[in-house]
Amino acid sequence: MPGWMYSKCKLKIASTDGGVRGVTKLAIQPADVRAAAERIRPLARRTPVLTSGAFDAQAGVRVFFKCENLQVGGAFKIRGAANLILSLPEEALGRGVIAYSSGNHAQAVAIAAQHMKVPATIVMPEDAPRAKVEATRSHGAQIVAYNRHTEVREQIADRLLRETGAALVPPFDHPMIMAGQGTAALELLEETGALDALITPVGGGGLLSGCATIAKHLHPELRVFGAEPDGANDTFLSMADGKRVSVEPHTIADGLRSPKPGELTFPVIQALAEQIALVTDDELRATVKFLLLHLKILVEPSGAAGAAAVLFEKLPPGIRSIGVVLSGGNIDFEELARY
Amino acid sequence: MPGWMYSKCKLKIASTDGGVRGVTKLAIQPADVRAAAERIRPLARRTPVLTSGAFDAQAGVRVFFKCENLQVGGAFKIRGAANLILSLPEEALGRGVIAYSSGNHAQAVAIAAQHMKVPATIVMPEDAPRAKVEATRSHGAQIVAYNRHTEVREQIADRLLRETGAALVPPFDHPMIMAGQGTAALELLEETGALDALITPVGGGGLLSGCATIAKHLHPELRVFGAEPDGANDTFLSMADGKRVSVEPHTIADGLRSPKPGELTFPVIQALAEQIALVTDDELRATVKFLLLHLKILVEPSGAAGAAAVLFEKLPPGIRSIGVVLSGGNIDFEELARY
Repeated sequence: MPGWMYSKCKLKIASTDGGVRGVTKLAIQPADVRAAAERIRPLARRTPVLTSGAFDAQAGVRVFFKCENLQVGGAFKIRGAANLILSLPEEALGRGVIAYSSGNHAQAVAIAAQHMKVPATIVMPEDAPRAKVEATRSHGAQIVAYNRHTEVREQIADRLLRETGAALVPPFDHPMIMAGQGTAALELLEETGALDALITPVGGGGLLSGCATIAKHLHPELRVFGAEPDGANDTFLSMADGKRVSVEPHTIADGLRSPKPGELTFPVIQALAEQIALVTDDELRATVKFLLLHLKILVEPSGAAGAAAVLFEKLPPGIRSIGVVLSGGNIDFEELARY
Repeated sequence: MPGWMYSKCKLKIASTDGGVRGVTKLAIQPADVRAAAERIRPLARRTPVLTSGAFDAQAGVRVFFKCENLQVGGAFKIRGAANLILSLPEEALGRGVIAYSSGNHAQAVAIAAQHMKVPATIVMPEDAPRAKVEATRSHGAQIVAYNRHTEVREQIADRLLRETGAALVPPFDHPMIMAGQGTAALELLEETGALDALITPVGGGGLLSGCATIAKHLHPELRVFGAEPDGANDTFLSMADGKRVSVEPHTIADGLRSPKPGELTFPVIQALAEQIALVTDDELRATVKFLLLHLKILVEPSGAAGAAAVLFEKLPPGIRSIGVVLSGGNIDFEELARY
C-alpha cells in the first residue's frame, strides 16, 4: 500500500451560503473558526511560524511551521477547549467540566477551567506520558485514571457526568472544538498568505477538520492533507472505504491513538482533504530529532506527523510551499533521550 | 563569594549627543544598533519572544525570552557577522573573510559569506561541538582546525590574513559586531516595552555590550545584567577589579570560554551593566532541561546562562519583569541526552 492515496471522494466546493453542494451540511463553517479566534484570544497564544533552510533543503519544498508545541499547555488543544468552555452558559459552567483524554486535551481543559475558576475532572489512561499527567494536575484538575485495555473511557465519563451534572468537553467530535482547532490554520495563513498545501496530524480529526474548513475558504486552490501513523490509520482506511472504519492503534504517537474518526469530523475531512499520508514510528522519531537539532524546538511524535510526511516525501508531486502544523511538544525527557 | 556583585563602577548616564559623561567615548552608540537593524534585515530573522507560566512560577518573576536559538544558524551571532560583512567595501569583500570561533560565530560568518558569494575560512578548535563544525562546513566555509591548548587561534588567523588578504571578522571586539548583536535587545524591547531588567550571557561581551547600549538608551531606568559560568568568570572578575582580567576557562558552556573581556566591549559593560551573575555548569544543565521540557525549545548551555541566573535567583531583589536573551541552541544530541 503506498504511503498516500487520493481520496475517492471528489472535492466539493463550498457555496456562498456556507453549505456544501451535494452533501449533508458540515458541522462547522468558516465563520465558526473566525468567531473562535475572537473568543479564545484571552487564553490561547498566537504561536510563531518558523522556517528552516535545513528542513527545506532536505524535503525539497518551502515549509512554514505553525508551532503549536509553543502553545499554552504545549499543544493546539487549548484552542478547542477554550472555545467550548468560554461559550458555556454560566449556570452550566458552575457545575464544572469533565474530559477524557490521553493528555494534551486534558491539560487544555484543566487550563481553561482554571482560567474560568470552575472545577475540572479528567479521565486519563494509566499509561499516559507522565509529563502530561503532571501538567494536568498542576492546573488544579482532578485526575481519574483508567486502564485503556480493560475500561471504556466514555463510560467512566458518562457516570461522572450523571453524578456531577458537569459539562462534557469532548476531545474532538464537537463543533466548538473543531472550530477552535481551526484557528491554528487561520493564524498560519494570515501570516504566510496563499500556500500550495497544508498538512496537520490526524487523531480524531478535530484539528484537520477545523484547519481544512478555514484554509479551503481562504484559498480554495490550497490542497489539504492529513498525516497519520501507519499503526493508527483509521482515517486513511475510512477515506478509502468512504465510511468510518475502526482500528486497534499501535504507535508511539500517543496523541493519535483514537481508533476511529469522529462522526462530525469525518464528513469535513472527506469533503475537504485530498488524502491522508501515512508515516512510520521510525519516521516520527527521526523527524522529532530533526526538528530538535535543526529548528531547535521540541515536538512530540504525534505533533511531528505532518512534518514527517513532508520530510519523508509522502505527498504527491507539485507542492512547492506547504504549511505544517506542529501540533504539540509534550514528551518525557527519558523517552526523547532514547531517540 | 556571592553569586552576584554590584559593579563598583557607578552608572553613567548617556548625554544627548550619545557620549557618556566622565569616561572615554564608548565604541558604539545607540544609532549604530539602529543602523545595524536595517543592514542585517535580509539575513537575520526577527526571532520570537516567548513567555512561560511554568518558568515565571518557578523564578518568581515575569520573563520575556528573546529566542536567538531560533535565529538563522541557531544563534545571535548572525546579527554581528552580517552587520560587519554587509558593510565591507566591495573590493575587500572580494578577497573573502576569515574568522576564528568555537562555533556559533563560525557558522554565522559562513552563512553571511555564502549569502554574499565570497569565500570564508574559519579557524575552529579541534574539540568544538560536532554540530557546530558540520553546520559551518555545510555553508561552504573552509575549516582550519587547531588545538586550543597548544595553539593560539589569533596567530593562525593572522597568518591566513597575510596569505590571503581576506578581511577578519572578529568574534566580539569590533564596533560593527557589537552593534549587530545589540539588535536582539532592540527587537525584544520593541515587543515588550519597558522592563525592569535585561540579562544576556557574557563570553567576550559583544552581545551584552550591544544590548546594554540600546536598552539603556530606550529605557534609562532598565537594569542591565550579564550572566557568566563560574568557571569562566573573567568579566565578573574584571568588573570587580575595574580592569580586564584573564582566566583559564573550564565550563560546559563552550560559547562562553573566552578568557578575557574585549578591549572595546569591556568599557561599555563597565559603564552600563549593573553586575555579572555567576552560574554553575549544573545550573546550566538544569536550565537547558527546564527550557526544553517547559518552553519546548532547545537552548545550548552557553545560551541558557541568563535564564539560569534568573531561575536560580542570582539577581538582586526588586525585579518584577526581565528580558532574557537565549543566545543559541547548537548542542549535540548525545550531549543533551546525558542531562
